[in-house]
Amino acid sequence: MEGAPTLRLRIFDLNCWAIRYLSKRRQERVRLIGNMLLREGFDLVLLQEVWSEQDYSDLKLKLGGCYPFSHYFRSGVIGSGLCVFSRFPILDTLLYQYSLNGYPYMLQHGDWFCGKSVGLVIIKISGIVFNVYVTHLHAEYCREKDAYLPHRLVQAWELAQFIRHTSKAADVVLLGGDLNMHPEDVGIRLLRGWTGLRDAFAEAAHFEGCEDGCTLVPNNCFTVKSELLPFPLGIRIDYILYKAVSSFTVKCEELKTTTGPAPGMDIPFSDHEAVMATLHIQRQGGAAGATLGTTEPRLVDVVTEARTEVCVGLRAARQQRYSTGRMAVLALLLLLLQALAVLGALAGLAAGQPFPKLSFSLLAFLAIGVLLLATGLHLFHTMEVKMLQGTEEQMQMALRALQERP
Amino acid sequence: MEGAPTLRLRIFDLNCWAIRYLSKRRQERVRLIGNMLLREGFDLVLLQEVWSEQDYSDLKLKLGGCYPFSHYFRSGVIGSGLCVFSRFPILDTLLYQYSLNGYPYMLQHGDWFCGKSVGLVIIKISGIVFNVYVTHLHAEYCREKDAYLPHRLVQAWELAQFIRHTSKAADVVLLGGDLNMHPEDVGIRLLRGWTGLRDAFAEAAHFEGCEDGCTLVPNNCFTVKSELLPFPLGIRIDYILYKAVSSFTVKCEELKTTTGPAPGMDIPFSDHEAVMATLHIQRQGGAAGATLGTTEPRLVDVVTEARTEVCVGLRAARQQRYSTGRMAVLALLLLLLQALAVLGALAGLAAGQPFPKLSFSLLAFLAIGVLLLATGLHLFHTMEVKMLQGTEEQMQMALRALQERP
Repeated sequence: MEGAPTLRLRIFDLNCWAIRYLSKRRQERVRLIGNMLLREGFDLVLLQEVWSEQDYSDLKLKLGGCYPFSHYFRSGVIGSGLCVFSRFPILDTLLYQYSLNGYPYMLQHGDWFCGKSVGLVIIKISGIVFNVYVTHLHAEYCREKDAYLPHRLVQAWELAQFIRHTSKAADVVLLGGDLNMHPEDVGIRLLRGWTGLRDAFAEAAHFEGCEDGCTLVPNNCFTVKSELLPFPLGIRIDYILYKAVSSFTVKCEELKTTTGPAPGMDIPFSDHEAVMATLHIQRQGGAAGATLGTTEPRLVDVVTEARTEVCVGLRAARQQRYSTGRMAVLALLLLLLQALAVLGALAGLAAGQPFPKLSFSLLAFLAIGVLLLATGLHLFHTMEVKMLQGTEEQMQMALRALQERP
Repeated sequence: MEGAPTLRLRIFDLNCWAIRYLSKRRQERVRLIGNMLLREGFDLVLLQEVWSEQDYSDLKLKLGGCYPFSHYFRSGVIGSGLCVFSRFPILDTLLYQYSLNGYPYMLQHGDWFCGKSVGLVIIKISGIVFNVYVTHLHAEYCREKDAYLPHRLVQAWELAQFIRHTSKAADVVLLGGDLNMHPEDVGIRLLRGWTGLRDAFAEAAHFEGCEDGCTLVPNNCFTVKSELLPFPLGIRIDYILYKAVSSFTVKCEELKTTTGPAPGMDIPFSDHEAVMATLHIQRQGGAAGATLGTTEPRLVDVVTEARTEVCVGLRAARQQRYSTGRMAVLALLLLLLQALAVLGALAGLAAGQPFPKLSFSLLAFLAIGVLLLATGLHLFHTMEVKMLQGTEEQMQMALRALQERP
């Protein structure tokens, strides 16, 4: 490919749904994914939800011949689940962990434990520097009353900021991942507007796959059908986005998605469909950077809309910080009262029948438990408030900068 | 200053020791710092340990005329304590929170709660883009047996990586802060070697201040004298570092430190001495980037040394992950045993005298407490292992890249 005037790059992106003990037929599917990646020989493979390091090691061993370079991003308790396989040498990596990612006590959702992050790998192909980002944002569990929207917006903002600040020396920027946002959602518009990234699905000259490019479809035997009831075609939440930073142009020749079962098998690769893009990268004189300018008036609206949602989250977080603080104070008061009663009894001041010892100590333990729990939650929500406030301020600064521009 | 061939920049850096309820004569000192900043009229002020937002707001109000632009970085429970005041517009900001920062149960040290981070502000002066970083790394509580060394090294590595990846479009990079490392420590050598940053103290044409540029000196009435016993002159842990990235040269004309009490006052500004640098920035043809090349053979040794220390930390973290996991399992077993005893008693199988109810329930509560605590710690140390492992791998990748270079 050295010296060629046009570079053709084939990229594969998939949320693998490979959670140990929880994901159905995990090992079989990881084997299937590995086989397909070997067969297809992509240039770049971006995977999410590879939460078992063993699965990564197995894939690495299997794919070593075809994809000699790879990186697994570690973070959080369970890991980030993010990894990259590449035909070309990975020159450098960086991980940025989002400052907000759900709540530790929402055990049934579990996002908090995954340390959701964005991983950056830098690759040089034929002298062209690629900044490749892979990420997975907080899931949306209820679209009507999405309690995680402010957190996901903070993540989308941090993702956009991280890309802007780290991609200044890149020729081409690629982002792949499960963004857990529909194409028209404010978070996607914010991310695209603030970074200038283009959506491979929207730009593709040729498309093949699930209707509307959906990546979570009712057709897939692993998806929860009830969640997709309002969307009979499914939803598109997995993306490949790109842009040329310096004097290059990128075009999406083809975009494909998988469509349910893997070829010749009874099961699909994952509960998500894979996204596969073929990009053409060409050197050209000074054409880049034009997209951001034309969309700027709308960008002000998008940032304002995102900021409003973050403010809603901020109010809720402040309320929770207050409630948990009050709960901690009440528990402390109860404990103090009990201590006073004990002291009173010791000093012989107790009139009449004292409390039975068992209930008394059970109550004390309960109070201690509530005190510890409420204090922990209070600290957590204090952090949440700080991060939402910080993001809101950054967005305000961005708005000022956008409005001041001629 | 517009169009001038040489830009003269005066920078002020101070760890303000402004912890609410804990730092002595805090408000008085913050007032003194504000007065001095107004009087001296620096171009750029980098502060750490401004942990009360009220103090920041007070300073902002007071300094508004002289330093119209400022930013306060929010993170963690208490905050990052980092803020910047500038005579020139701040164009953009980004915060990166270090993935490791001590232990939540080390309440007496408290670093974990502060969300130690590095803050970036981007400033443009006379067409020159400045990436200004301000940070505060984990404190060193015991130099002989420094349990936090691996965490501080992870922070130094993440700081260096963050600077490398975000400064590619900058003309000049400035870093100020309390790095909690002596000039000869491996972390400083790693940071300087991996980023190419130069130490303003070492490069200064003229120096004035505490001997050897120390910033924590026995002379200061707020320092803990016993901690400084092995260092009669004090230690140098606060730095201003700089480099020119593109076709610029930066020279340090003068470096100063404060020396104990503020002029005309009985107390110093903080328990740290302030560092003040005067830099000369000049446009020049293609001279930059030479420093990294010449130091590369030594850089391999430095990264190797840092990696060894991270591995030591990794072993300790694995050991703690194992111990806390075992403790959790034991507590769970005890609980199960108690549940069996209760079931036995209910089924009338209990022979002889049953346990007294009070001790029995106290024991159960104790087991639950230990179970929760040990599980929490186990999760924490699992994260610690992951981050240390991730850093170790990144360092390994860096070593390979360094060794492969011609």
